[in-house]
Amino acid sequence: MKKIIFLALTSTLLFATPKTSVILMIGDGMGPAYTTAFRYYSEKNSTVFDSMLMGMNSTYSQNSVITDSAAAATALASGVKTKNGFIGRTDKNSTKVQTVLEFAKENGYLTAIAVTSTLTHATPAAFLSTRGLHRNKEADIAKDFFIKNKKGLLKFDFLIGGGEKYFSEGYNDFNATAKKYGVSLYRDGYNIEKIDQYPFIAFTAYDYPKFAIDEEVNNKYRVTKMTKKSLELLNNKTFFLMIEGSQIDWCGHMNDIGCAMAEMDDFARSVEIAKTYVKEHPNTLLIVTADHSTGGLAIGKKIKKDDKTVTEEQRSKSYIWYPNIIKQIKASSILIAKKLRASDDINTTFKKYTSLALNQDEYQKIQDVLNKKNKKIRQIINDIINLHSNTGWTTHGHTAVDVETFAYGKESEKFKGFMDNTDIAKNIFKILSKK
Amino acid sequence: MKKIIFLALTSTLLFATPKTSVILMIGDGMGPAYTTAFRYYSEKNSTVFDSMLMGMNSTYSQNSVITDSAAAATALASGVKTKNGFIGRTDKNSTKVQTVLEFAKENGYLTAIAVTSTLTHATPAAFLSTRGLHRNKEADIAKDFFIKNKKGLLKFDFLIGGGEKYFSEGYNDFNATAKKYGVSLYRDGYNIEKIDQYPFIAFTAYDYPKFAIDEEVNNKYRVTKMTKKSLELLNNKTFFLMIEGSQIDWCGHMNDIGCAMAEMDDFARSVEIAKTYVKEHPNTLLIVTADHSTGGLAIGKKIKKDDKTVTEEQRSKSYIWYPNIIKQIKASSILIAKKLRASDDINTTFKKYTSLALNQDEYQKIQDVLNKKNKKIRQIINDIINLHSNTGWTTHGHTAVDVETFAYGKESEKFKGFMDNTDIAKNIFKILSKK
Repeated sequence: MKKIIFLALTSTLLFATPKTSVILMIGDGMGPAYTTAFRYYSEKNSTVFDSMLMGMNSTYSQNSVITDSAAAATALASGVKTKNGFIGRTDKNSTKVQTVLEFAKENGYLTAIAVTSTLTHATPAAFLSTRGLHRNKEADIAKDFFIKNKKGLLKFDFLIGGGEKYFSEGYNDFNATAKKYGVSLYRDGYNIEKIDQYPFIAFTAYDYPKFAIDEEVNNKYRVTKMTKKSLELLNNKTFFLMIEGSQIDWCGHMNDIGCAMAEMDDFARSVEIAKTYVKEHPNTLLIVTADHSTGGLAIGKKIKKDDKTVTEEQRSKSYIWYPNIIKQIKASSILIAKKLRASDDINTTFKKYTSLALNQDEYQKIQDVLNKKNKKIRQIINDIINLHSNTGWTTHGHTAVDVETFAYGKESEKFKGFMDNTDIAKNIFKILSKK
Repeated sequence: MKKIIFLALTSTLLFATPKTSVILMIGDGMGPAYTTAFRYYSEKNSTVFDSMLMGMNSTYSQNSVITDSAAAATALASGVKTKNGFIGRTDKNSTKVQTVLEFAKENGYLTAIAVTSTLTHATPAAFLSTRGLHRNKEADIAKDFFIKNKKGLLKFDFLIGGGEKYFSEGYNDFNATAKKYGVSLYRDGYNIEKIDQYPFIAFTAYDYPKFAIDEEVNNKYRVTKMTKKSLELLNNKTFFLMIEGSQIDWCGHMNDIGCAMAEMDDFARSVEIAKTYVKEHPNTLLIVTADHSTGGLAIGKKIKKDDKTVTEEQRSKSYIWYPNIIKQIKASSILIAKKLRASDDINTTFKKYTSLALNQDEYQKIQDVLNKKNKKIRQIINDIINLHSNTGWTTHGHTAVDVETFAYGKESEKFKGFMDNTDIAKNIFKILSKK
């Protein structure tokens, strides 16, 4: 026994523990109802999220119990609270914050980000921009990406995501800037397989990337693809990698359950890949969480007594949720709206994309708004799908419910129980600091 | 070091570990949005729930992803899934299940239940009735309470709750039955302080007990009182105690946020008391969970553009929740409705109970339904409060979101991470089995 103790002591004293690589995965908008719904949608007894559940974290911002993505991302990236809408702190005395990504780079880590939003969108922005800019200033945020740190290094090794537009707007000659910093640029959507060197930025879209569910994308599993590629490039290195399933939130804002579940599917597969990597690389930690919950999603909806579109059978089954109806949805409400407008047969087109046969009331509702604002027709489409699947929503904004903290691998125990979202960043700083 | 190992070994071999007492507390309907809302409502950085968060559990029933209280209570009491509406299993080959309370009694534990529902309501019923009865058969359920087990013992040592009515209906002469079994009966509401012997049943109401928030009750903290009394009676004994905050759910069904938060307050104080007991009694385990979430509560609501009752200021603050408005509510919507009907001044009465000044539209809405069905006026009252506080709901039923598992004390680690609600009972069986 003495021998074992001696060996343990000497190994601690003589050899510094290898640094811990950190993969932080953010499901934007992925509150508890999303992970539960996804379990029933995927017909599994337990999902990859379930296998990693450690606790929950509170998401309130500096000025509201209901956070937006900017304040929440600032909390997760820097461990500080800020006001809704802002990337970093806005108070005069401490405008500049440090992000875990910046800290990682200064401490010899490789750093990378892969998202399905624009790269300058709130969540990724909060890891690279620290001036306290408003989230809407995406072109200004882009300017913060090409800043060298004290050691003369760029903050990032690679970035994969949308929003080339904001880089074009932010820089006089973005191509020249990238060249000056030695950063290769790729503009071939999700065709990222062949990239084998960094630093680089791979733009998956000029503006906003499309939804997983939409046929036009032909990339149902694009977060999965980006996760695979990122870990292939970072394999066996010491790194900080942030991956965001950005569009779970966007589907939630529209109250589009088919869209949201398709995004969850892509994100869950990505988490599986990251978990497998961590399993095979013991000095790696995987943290998965959400920045907030979106839409007040509930697996259960009030059926109005005077709603003629509800059958008696449906009414009697108000304690049932119908994931099978959701699984048959083949497009986002945005794309369905577009297809309905271009079609001369509403019934056939609606059925093609939803597998649902419209009744007369539903048909009329669509007909009435077909030439009105986009939002109106989208809402009618989602109302029909939500009614048939018995899915409830309370808002087109966010809600304040705590979100789950999932973790796996080295130091994952640090994420047990209840904590604030700022504690996640604080823990990451501590873990990155260890030699 | 050898000496320590020797001592540890002998103490394990020579002395059996004392049995573990178990306190199971169920917040009926208390999904994640309730515990989050309660934190912001109580203006604390963290609540007693937060201090005990271990994980989450799934609540689906045998025939639906959205459970009712009967199927969920059967899962928590017996570790098996059953159909919505039923207490115990309904399949012909295995109608009878065993409950953790029955098992505890057979193994020398004291057993007790304290609830704010009727004692024959779904949740308490599932711990005492195992024939697979429908939850609505409360008088039949009452008959299952006075059955002696193999050892010739009554299943319970004491019960505190409402519903004397169902015992009167279930037995020809309930007083005589109680006398025959040596069970004292108390009928003095929450005046339970002086009870010092068991077995007994203390009926807190002839039918349904009232809400914590309602002035008529004059017992804002009645779960707290029952918890205190129960632990005083069971102090230093080995016991299984089930306590339910039953009416969180009832407020949720009405979408009455003031009512729900007052129930949460009472329940949280009860959990504090139980936690203190466990701290002082190391062989005790406290588990707190919900059976499901009710109403699709969301801390955040959609503000309709055409809703004239919303001020421009409110509209601009849709990412804000207003717990201060909720804290000023002084009665349930049921009681407010009653008061409004009895009043000749709607404005003054509404303001008295809600601190909210009605605008002309709101006044008219109340006036329009004042003589209609109870539900209608209640809904108008709750609509106004929900709008002003920005509280969202999706249904008057339940939703399927996972609920939190909280635990503290001996063996609490067994409740970490994700599990199914049946696993909670399975764990309790294991813990009760240990000598």
